[in-house]
Amino acid sequence: MSPEFKPVPVMVDGVRDCAIANTLEVIGDKWSLLVLRELALGVHRFNDIQRHTGAPRDRVADRLRNLEQSGVIERRLYNEHPPRFEYWLTPSGRDLAPVLDSLREWGEAHRPPTAG
Amino acid sequence: MSPEFKPVPVMVDGVRDCAIANTLEVIGDKWSLLVLRELALGVHRFNDIQRHTGAPRDRVADRLRNLEQSGVIERRLYNEHPPRFEYWLTPSGRDLAPVLDSLREWGEAHRPPTAG
Repeated sequence: MSPEFKPVPVMVDGVRDCAIANTLEVIGDKWSLLVLRELALGVHRFNDIQRHTGAPRDRVADRLRNLEQSGVIERRLYNEHPPRFEYWLTPSGRDLAPVLDSLREWGEAHRPPTAG
Repeated sequence: MSPEFKPVPVMVDGVRDCAIANTLEVIGDKWSLLVLRELALGVHRFNDIQRHTGAPRDRVADRLRNLEQSGVIERRLYNEHPPRFEYWLTPSGRDLAPVLDSLREWGEAHRPPTAG
């Protein structure tokens, strides 16, 4: 880990009170991060997000709801009758780009895509 | 997401064949990432890792086993009778530092530690 990781996060009741842990409360899950990847790639509609991630539909719906509650994505109405929504990154969601980039860089070095 | 994210990963059977997804197969889980944080901070023994993450013991044991199978951590014997092991990052595990750094940076901006 880079030197600027120090100082080591302090403990609260023996557990680290840590920004990494706080971030993982929002996105510490494979499907959440793949949903965010799709939004970052410009994919905004439920069916496309579901297909591109390969996640079960209920999982995608759950993660979209949690990410919206956490304020990193927002819904935008694109059809009124029936009501249909797109999902977009908020400013704090766009700030997650370095997380996706670092995951991609490690994967390209150590777990490259088979067809890429 | 940064411009160098392009080109967009290709699809295989409609699902993206993507280095991010491959990385998340290894570490796409809150407890895995907190275990890796402890190792990166120089904490190597099971009881300390368990206490600092606040994870249930069986969860820590499961994540350590998976991370070892994935080759990002290794066990080192430090006591022979009874056999006791420490857990250390391998070279590919140390390469995950930018992932932890990017998670920490987002957290410090958007979800700062309460006592930090």
